[in-house]
Amino acid sequence: MYRKEIKVLDCTIRDGGLMNNHQFSNEFVQRVFQVVNASGVDYIELGYKADESQFSRSEFGAMKFCSEKDLEAVVGKVEKNCKISVMVDIGRVNPDTIIPKAESYVDMMRVATYVKDIDKAIALVNQIKAKGYETTINIMAVSHARENELDEALIQVEKESGVDVVYLVDSFGALYSEQIAYMAKKYRTLLKTREIGIHAHNNQQLAFANTIEAIIQNINYLDGTILGIGRAAGNCPLELLLGFLKNPKFDIRPILEILETDFVRLRKEIEWGYTIPYMITGILDLHPRAAMALRKSENRDAYLDFYEKLTNEANF
Amino acid sequence: MYRKEIKVLDCTIRDGGLMNNHQFSNEFVQRVFQVVNASGVDYIELGYKADESQFSRSEFGAMKFCSEKDLEAVVGKVEKNCKISVMVDIGRVNPDTIIPKAESYVDMMRVATYVKDIDKAIALVNQIKAKGYETTINIMAVSHARENELDEALIQVEKESGVDVVYLVDSFGALYSEQIAYMAKKYRTLLKTREIGIHAHNNQQLAFANTIEAIIQNINYLDGTILGIGRAAGNCPLELLLGFLKNPKFDIRPILEILETDFVRLRKEIEWGYTIPYMITGILDLHPRAAMALRKSENRDAYLDFYEKLTNEANF
Repeated sequence: MYRKEIKVLDCTIRDGGLMNNHQFSNEFVQRVFQVVNASGVDYIELGYKADESQFSRSEFGAMKFCSEKDLEAVVGKVEKNCKISVMVDIGRVNPDTIIPKAESYVDMMRVATYVKDIDKAIALVNQIKAKGYETTINIMAVSHARENELDEALIQVEKESGVDVVYLVDSFGALYSEQIAYMAKKYRTLLKTREIGIHAHNNQQLAFANTIEAIIQNINYLDGTILGIGRAAGNCPLELLLGFLKNPKFDIRPILEILETDFVRLRKEIEWGYTIPYMITGILDLHPRAAMALRKSENRDAYLDFYEKLTNEANF
Repeated sequence: MYRKEIKVLDCTIRDGGLMNNHQFSNEFVQRVFQVVNASGVDYIELGYKADESQFSRSEFGAMKFCSEKDLEAVVGKVEKNCKISVMVDIGRVNPDTIIPKAESYVDMMRVATYVKDIDKAIALVNQIKAKGYETTINIMAVSHARENELDEALIQVEKESGVDVVYLVDSFGALYSEQIAYMAKKYRTLLKTREIGIHAHNNQQLAFANTIEAIIQNINYLDGTILGIGRAAGNCPLELLLGFLKNPKFDIRPILEILETDFVRLRKEIEWGYTIPYMITGILDLHPRAAMALRKSENRDAYLDFYEKLTNEANF
């Protein structure tokens, strides 16, 4: 029997866009929107709402900005079954440019933050909430957070924010399922009146398993991406999540179709997913940036040297 | 703190050999043996002990047969830290050709069986045990076993066999961690005087997660392969397992080295690992043979049609 509170959020275009500065073609973004919309998935996250005075459209694709015009070009006249989400980064969005929800294609805005910026995140999320949007706070890199500071941040979010959902984000793909269970219990205990979400990375091939563990721990908001596309090792594969969930409203078939028509080719053009350098940063609980740099260098497969360097650095 | 009872078995050459009729070069098999031997892994499974009157050396590589001469060519004069395992299939081995353990390079023989053949497996394992070998019974396709028949088989193994280890084998990569936990408890309850092992497949990217779940459930024998090589979606990646286990005797570095020198190239020559057709047979709890045939056909990426065919067939 399925749990009707479970919501699936597809962030294929948003997290996948981190690999190519959001330079997907309009047609591709439209097709992803259409198949996700047809699959019964609850939310689709299309990109960021980045400040146009800080970032240039000559360098980044439209989904870095997600203006109403950009979103209209994606959604067009399609009957919308899924809600639209965009992500906002603290300091990279101009809150004054956010129009009221009633006038926007956007249904939900997700604020990405580290524990240390939680005050800024709460202020921003309250501004966005006041304009009528559903909101989330996504606390990144939770595997690096000091426990007492994370606890304080969660207590503060519960007390001071109007946020709907707080996400547990394993940015480095470092956590095992037992650690996800431990964190999930903490979130549930300290955030009694909010929903909890999970955003997992696949450095150790645990993104799907950790998402299942989150479900077991009563986490209801689940992020996935088609073929696990996303930064570095990528995310929980949406197709696996839809294969697992029992709610009859989900239909895996539109996702299988786009996997066939678009993702076989895309995977040849952009690299993401499990590779040994991302595995190494995962087991060492490090940001994948060193592995991403390695994969772009001529030493892309120099695994042993990469491991030795990172573990020697870790000794200082 | 690590659990000293845990034993890791690398079956890179044995399960990987299912993808190319065991036609690896001698040099490659030697190198895999050397790095596994250097990594602290407890056992290496090199292949099958197949009946030479049933199978031809013109069709299959040496590790299909694992004669003493074949094994000498691999192990040579290397100081052996890990034990040598070979697999035997019921009806495909001639037990009379098995020499006493004291005269053999082999330390352990693993008998692969379905529940329905458990009587034959017990008879064979007892013959092998009498010759001095460590033995296992690997019960395949446990996701398809009828529960009462599996229970009876396990009770019978406990009562009638001298086997050391009984393996839980998720041949179709269909089981979720909760189901692994359920099965593991059953094995532990019915096989009080034996060790239990786990051999997981990666159709749903759960092989590593399910192996961790097995560890939590006090399973001590763990199969892995380098880069997860193995039939179809492959196995639990050995590098992930060594990254997880805390016993200081394990050293991931020799494995990283061969990943770099040999497996980048090998993965371009042979396909294994997570692909959508194997994911589909996994979620449908089916043998991967239809997916393997698809991957060899010109329609290798016709995912939706493949899914529709399998689900329509399942309705009859």
